[in-house]
Amino acid sequence: MSKIQALSVGFLGPKGTYSEEMALSIYAKEEAALVPYTSISAVIRAVETGEVSQGVVPIENSIEGSINITLDMLAHDVHLFITQEKIKSIHNYLLVNGETWQTSPAGENIELIISHEQPLAQCRNYINTHFPKARIKVVESTSTAASLVAAGKVGWAAICSQRAAEIYNLKIAAGNIQDNDSNRTRFVVIKKRPDALVHDGLYKTLLACRINGERPGALYELLTEFVKRNINITKIESRPARTNLGEYIFFLDIDGGIHSETIRELAAAVEEKTLWFKNLGSYLCEKNSRA
Amino acid sequence: MSKIQALSVGFLGPKGTYSEEMALSIYAKEEAALVPYTSISAVIRAVETGEVSQGVVPIENSIEGSINITLDMLAHDVHLFITQEKIKSIHNYLLVNGETWQTSPAGENIELIISHEQPLAQCRNYINTHFPKARIKVVESTSTAASLVAAGKVGWAAICSQRAAEIYNLKIAAGNIQDNDSNRTRFVVIKKRPDALVHDGLYKTLLACRINGERPGALYELLTEFVKRNINITKIESRPARTNLGEYIFFLDIDGGIHSETIRELAAAVEEKTLWFKNLGSYLCEKNSRA
Repeated sequence: MSKIQALSVGFLGPKGTYSEEMALSIYAKEEAALVPYTSISAVIRAVETGEVSQGVVPIENSIEGSINITLDMLAHDVHLFITQEKIKSIHNYLLVNGETWQTSPAGENIELIISHEQPLAQCRNYINTHFPKARIKVVESTSTAASLVAAGKVGWAAICSQRAAEIYNLKIAAGNIQDNDSNRTRFVVIKKRPDALVHDGLYKTLLACRINGERPGALYELLTEFVKRNINITKIESRPARTNLGEYIFFLDIDGGIHSETIRELAAAVEEKTLWFKNLGSYLCEKNSRA
Repeated sequence: MSKIQALSVGFLGPKGTYSEEMALSIYAKEEAALVPYTSISAVIRAVETGEVSQGVVPIENSIEGSINITLDMLAHDVHLFITQEKIKSIHNYLLVNGETWQTSPAGENIELIISHEQPLAQCRNYINTHFPKARIKVVESTSTAASLVAAGKVGWAAICSQRAAEIYNLKIAAGNIQDNDSNRTRFVVIKKRPDALVHDGLYKTLLACRINGERPGALYELLTEFVKRNINITKIESRPARTNLGEYIFFLDIDGGIHSETIRELAAAVEEKTLWFKNLGSYLCEKNSRA
């Protein structure tokens, strides 16, 4: 296998998605083959089967919250490790077909808005205010939405990146339409094996576990393990355990990498105290990942 | 205003949704006017403006987790109280147009699957296994999906309740297609003012708050208040604070009603310790809400 083939990166395509922009920026200095997939779950599966050597997937957005499919698949369906995080400011654009758009008065004539579910949720207030009667169509990626509008009818619009306007030859009807100026998405690189950790790197580690929800104070006791080691939890998130209503698994993002003695001790203690435990990886992170 | 008008209940319509089934069961013994709305947010807004005296909305599903729009609106956009919870087993059915369906071989010809985003997520594995190439269309309710299929083309299918098959005269192509047998949804009744609490009722209370996420141990310190009063947290959920990536608000469901001295003390302590606090109501709950 040649070196170029060895570094192949799955991302949510086709061309022009936010995921592609992120992948281009992460692998700017390397000879990587970027491979588009039609859904986030297909990217994750391609890494699991070895079809690509790594993947870039979104894991959290500052307005809409966690990307459920990413968290759920990493917890339940595959055995992969997060090795890096990278954060991207997201600017959403309302794109229309320039040819048909010219023929009608601005604004009121948008009947159908197409996008991925995340940008639709990020622009919920904008859509409700400006186009309360428009129908909404959810597709697998923003670029799919752009291509549908490029081939579509009068009154169709897509919510995409600015770059998608160029690629699909669309006209920008409105820019920066997200409901909040600090619209940011956290992406992660996923691989089959963890990277070797370097001692001066800034790391976080993502742990998943299930506690006995019937027992009062079980979460508190679990958190004791973090507090007594002075380990900072940067994020805690609950998701259904997929067993019964009222049973959850927790995702805990913490400062530090598994090469540290303290983090290894903590991981062992968490595993000991919980019904189910999974280390989803220690990953290089950005300095200002919370700002 | 007559008594009948005074008890008007908003729900996610049109006829045949899971929400309507829930509303019919909650108000079976009362003369309530059930008023359909086209989205969950429209139901919540109608209660806020007084257009209806109360609403029935889903808040959590055992497979797909919290209904984000319900939690986010109760926290940020309105001032309402939850007064009751009721849990419903959800059985999803794949419905097709009987007339067109007869003309083609079973199964392989489904090209478009239409539903609300929740049933689509609850049946994600089923869809990927049986119809990996089908396009997905998200609409505001399962009944809207059923009516589209009733008026639609060969190869269209809707994921709905069994009852929707009767109402929209559709054929059941497959039943119980949810990814998990324990597919249950928790619905809540919301009102502008809290109900008077009765002393022998079984209550839970939902609190929302924002802590200083930059400070290590802040969540732990908050949980101390619950533990030292021996108050059981039945659910903890984080959602973006809509400020910056990495800032969250927490939703905490606890056993007990605000008519108890202990719960009132706890609420005061939580308010004291947090940057932002909101009591979303004490509500009558079902005995086995976790099983």
